[in-house]
Amino acid sequence: MQRLRVAFLGPAASFSHQAALECFGRSAELTPCPTFADIFSAVQQNDADYAAIPFENSTNGSVVQTLDLLADRDRVYSDIEICGEYYLTVHHCLLARKGTAPSASGSYDFINKLYTHPQAWGQCEKFLSEHFKGVEKQDVSSTSKAAEIAARDETGQSAAIASSFAAEYHGADILEANIEDKDDNTTRFLIVRNIRSEQTASSYPPSLANAGSAEKNEQSPAKRKTLVSFTVNHSSPGALADALLVFKTHGQNLTSINTRPSRSKPWHYVFFVECSETTSSPNDETVGQLLEDLGKVTESCRNLGTWDEQIS
Amino acid sequence: MQRLRVAFLGPAASFSHQAALECFGRSAELTPCPTFADIFSAVQQNDADYAAIPFENSTNGSVVQTLDLLADRDRVYSDIEICGEYYLTVHHCLLARKGTAPSASGSYDFINKLYTHPQAWGQCEKFLSEHFKGVEKQDVSSTSKAAEIAARDETGQSAAIASSFAAEYHGADILEANIEDKDDNTTRFLIVRNIRSEQTASSYPPSLANAGSAEKNEQSPAKRKTLVSFTVNHSSPGALADALLVFKTHGQNLTSINTRPSRSKPWHYVFFVECSETTSSPNDETVGQLLEDLGKVTESCRNLGTWDEQIS
Repeated sequence: MQRLRVAFLGPAASFSHQAALECFGRSAELTPCPTFADIFSAVQQNDADYAAIPFENSTNGSVVQTLDLLADRDRVYSDIEICGEYYLTVHHCLLARKGTAPSASGSYDFINKLYTHPQAWGQCEKFLSEHFKGVEKQDVSSTSKAAEIAARDETGQSAAIASSFAAEYHGADILEANIEDKDDNTTRFLIVRNIRSEQTASSYPPSLANAGSAEKNEQSPAKRKTLVSFTVNHSSPGALADALLVFKTHGQNLTSINTRPSRSKPWHYVFFVECSETTSSPNDETVGQLLEDLGKVTESCRNLGTWDEQIS
Repeated sequence: MQRLRVAFLGPAASFSHQAALECFGRSAELTPCPTFADIFSAVQQNDADYAAIPFENSTNGSVVQTLDLLADRDRVYSDIEICGEYYLTVHHCLLARKGTAPSASGSYDFINKLYTHPQAWGQCEKFLSEHFKGVEKQDVSSTSKAAEIAARDETGQSAAIASSFAAEYHGADILEANIEDKDDNTTRFLIVRNIRSEQTASSYPPSLANAGSAEKNEQSPAKRKTLVSFTVNHSSPGALADALLVFKTHGQNLTSINTRPSRSKPWHYVFFVECSETTSSPNDETVGQLLEDLGKVTESCRNLGTWDEQIS
């Protein structure tokens, strides 16, 4: 069997890289893509079998870049389907060049400069105010880049805030782990596939995936979740309420709603409704019927995929 | 009567400044605030009577900073109420230092550097690729800042992309107007007030507001819009559908839905539902009944305000 090709949002050692590795294991060929659009193109053109795409963060909310690509306003990603999800808890650590920290001193006085992504400063405020008041802080484009800069600093006087995965990848020492303010900050990734790809024809997760989730799936059948996008006629009162009612009629529980501008005209939206089955019966047939009924009360609608729920 | 004090998102000559001026006129005292939170604090502490706050853009979608403050997770903005809305069409122009452009040349060869906010490059792609291929482009923090830099450049060899309002404010020449790709790119602002402020006790728009909207209000009674925030028990299937059904029951048409993380626990959301009355009868009483019924099926809910719909 060919190696699975999995695309993720780069650079290497990003949180997306970590999610892709934890989902598909070391035997897969993991490729960083510079932008969200590059990931979608890679899957659509069958240059990748799967991709792991950040969808929402428990603190910061939805990832609008992903929603905008799923909206597929120009209908160029018609072969892309969601087939799974993955929850990654965001842990940060303080790291520095290997071997340069004074051993067991417990003090960070030797560090005179810190690097990380702008969002990470805000996630580690308590630790920073305790240990790094007044120390120079420089924004960089990713936590992985920050880890790389600190790992290469021959003076050993700089440090980075990044994941332990990035520390390992760039060969840095972890000075302190789990320095984030909230220990439940989690990013949910969607796993997407190309529906024409033979490699992905069998259901996700593939046999290569990490033992943890494979085991979980064997023990108890997971609930099925579905993501649907649709537009409604905004001049028709009640159109949105009618569309949402269809989910209830088909025994689906609404678990999240998102909207993005349709960009066809102002104040016209693409709605994204995620739902999960309320009974334990397989719902792929139900979803087909749901889409049929939804089509009657919407301008357009699309089933973006159905997958096994993972537990956060 | 005291001058009305109106807060807006700075710097001076920003699109928020323009919106505030068009809503409240030159007799009001308009004060720039550096952050969204500063605006909310100014109104809550009664340092401002009103504020104009960007809520959504027809191309880029909702402004999450505004939603996060309206969510009011720490209950510190309990006196803030929405009392109006205002639509501002986003037009960009090319501007330069007064008097330095070769007159009537029609060519921009004398410009060797361009300044603007990162978002504006993307909104003027066609114009830029036609006239400024290969010209150095520098990001700045706001279009107003870009206008200021170009206006002060004594060499006269730089230009900025900003609003005609910013050109006038900074005393620059407009070389070309309406250079944006889409001529319907519009930002909707919410007008908020402090419910304890005597100055704002009479309904918005105040008599000081621009003649245009005052006239419109006299001609035909506007539809009333309402924004409600609520949280539901996520472990209860159908809770969200039940909450949305309440709006229909009370004759309200759902016009927009937004969600933000509640931050009390992961994957628990604050929902924002905007609705408008489907009949022409005044609906303030209906909204009270709606909130009462909504309270029965939600964990918490809040009426963020009811106001006259403006036409985009």
